[in-house]
Amino acid sequence: MMKIKKAVITAAARGERLYPVADTIQKAMLPVVDVDGLHKPVIQIIAEEALSSGIEELCVVCAPGDGPRYLEAFGSLRDNLLRSYQGIDWAREEAEKIDHLLSRLQFAEQPEARGYGHAVYCAREFVSQEPFLLLLGDYLYVSDVPRQRCAAQLLALAAQEGCSVSAVNPTIEHQVSRYGTITGKHLAGQVGVYQIDKIIEKPSLSLAELELQTPGLRAGYYLCFFGMHVLTPAVFSILQSQLEAGGPNVLLTPALQELATTEKYLALEVRGSRYDLSRKQGLLRAQIALGLAGEAHDETLTTLVELLAEANSRKAQLS
Amino acid sequence: MMKIKKAVITAAARGERLYPVADTIQKAMLPVVDVDGLHKPVIQIIAEEALSSGIEELCVVCAPGDGPRYLEAFGSLRDNLLRSYQGIDWAREEAEKIDHLLSRLQFAEQPEARGYGHAVYCAREFVSQEPFLLLLGDYLYVSDVPRQRCAAQLLALAAQEGCSVSAVNPTIEHQVSRYGTITGKHLAGQVGVYQIDKIIEKPSLSLAELELQTPGLRAGYYLCFFGMHVLTPAVFSILQSQLEAGGPNVLLTPALQELATTEKYLALEVRGSRYDLSRKQGLLRAQIALGLAGEAHDETLTTLVELLAEANSRKAQLS
Repeated sequence: MMKIKKAVITAAARGERLYPVADTIQKAMLPVVDVDGLHKPVIQIIAEEALSSGIEELCVVCAPGDGPRYLEAFGSLRDNLLRSYQGIDWAREEAEKIDHLLSRLQFAEQPEARGYGHAVYCAREFVSQEPFLLLLGDYLYVSDVPRQRCAAQLLALAAQEGCSVSAVNPTIEHQVSRYGTITGKHLAGQVGVYQIDKIIEKPSLSLAELELQTPGLRAGYYLCFFGMHVLTPAVFSILQSQLEAGGPNVLLTPALQELATTEKYLALEVRGSRYDLSRKQGLLRAQIALGLAGEAHDETLTTLVELLAEANSRKAQLS
Repeated sequence: MMKIKKAVITAAARGERLYPVADTIQKAMLPVVDVDGLHKPVIQIIAEEALSSGIEELCVVCAPGDGPRYLEAFGSLRDNLLRSYQGIDWAREEAEKIDHLLSRLQFAEQPEARGYGHAVYCAREFVSQEPFLLLLGDYLYVSDVPRQRCAAQLLALAAQEGCSVSAVNPTIEHQVSRYGTITGKHLAGQVGVYQIDKIIEKPSLSLAELELQTPGLRAGYYLCFFGMHVLTPAVFSILQSQLEAGGPNVLLTPALQELATTEKYLALEVRGSRYDLSRKQGLLRAQIALGLAGEAHDETLTTLVELLAEANSRKAQLS
């Protein structure tokens, strides 16, 4: 059985919509209440998705010089936890989690912004000759399966099948133009598993209708990338030829298209939701979703109801 | 008519519950979507509450050495806005707002943490012999009055009456032990205005029942501090004698009690809500409240409904 021990998290700038903070580190260190009810930096929540799914080594792809700045930010967060909450169990446990994370964490610099494919390529020395989990630095995931994270679902299938697997989820047609979209043959006897036939990056709806229908899905739905992949190291030689072919930017999707023609490559309908922090109101959406999904569900629900009542009475006063 | 041109914002550490970030600047620079739909640092939203209510000069009371770090953080936010959203109107306007804010902004250092009264005292040279608006660095306000912020309501009464005024709001009895609580005589002919008779810091419910009942309020409600005051410079000599009397910490409330015995001192029921970022889920509460109160009301409501439906279907799947 294929063992996947490494994860790559791309944390170079992907979009600026979330918040025009001066750098990607501030963005990655923004606090979000995790499903366990604790405030954590975004990047820590993503790293824990990987670590709690069996990953042993992490590499964050970042802008030049950002590695030491991440280490400093985590170090002072850790020290502050121990100082501010002296003797409190959850704070000591949280500081230990940060230590654990730091002991597993490496950085790879992306010397210039040349697209998402290029960012992934920058992790080739860390990955070396092994399969790896690829996560986006500004997506947060909530699993629908108790005690099995989204990454764990993906890793389980990749290990069992010994091949690349991309997470997908059925997406309503008016949103397909925002995502890499795939189609393929449903694998008999396996729920939500497809042999990938075709991948198109951000297809128009008419192109999707022509080329990307997948039998068995609800009408008007397509299989779009969920933002999480297990890839074999073969992807690096494909990316390398694309980089050598020139062009300022190298996307990941064309490399995945080529991977599908050369290797066994599956898609898995992950049971869960993802929240894109780069979208408008993305941080707010993620905060509420994690609040409702986790231990703070009842408290979050109460908060929402109170605030809705308050806003409603304010509207009534104004009108 | 008394003119109030100066505002003091206390941004030294008050509580650590929000998020154990390593310093108060990170906390003050956390992004929140303001009522105008834009992501802004918390401290900028508070500063704009003052500036848009007629204040001309601002002083942030901060930890030693933090002034230049605030300037650097705002400077890079400004540069990033101009770089990332080149040629886009709202970004240029936002950068201009930051320039305007910076041109009005001073800092006063609090050399050591000796309580909230001491933090206010550190602004005495900035304030000099004028009345001033006092705001908390981790409260955000939403007004119930169209085009009149909470600070503007308070400043209008203080200017008209030429005296100190504290904002208060009727608070249910089980919460009075969290706030400075007042009682006083309702001023005839003025809605929600009281001549302050008595102030007790965080009273027990039984003490409040005995000493702080205010006729005319709904049963079980008390007038608690809203976290916003207009004060005359007389408060500094009172704080000074308290500091000289010793004790490690100097609170503001005892100084206000003394102010009430020596000067005309009113309370105003501000028409609006305040959100304490230091409370549990405080940042989330504030984000949702500002979203629902402002231009993004419909979008925020849609987001909430979608997320509630999603969480509900997840719960249904799990059970």
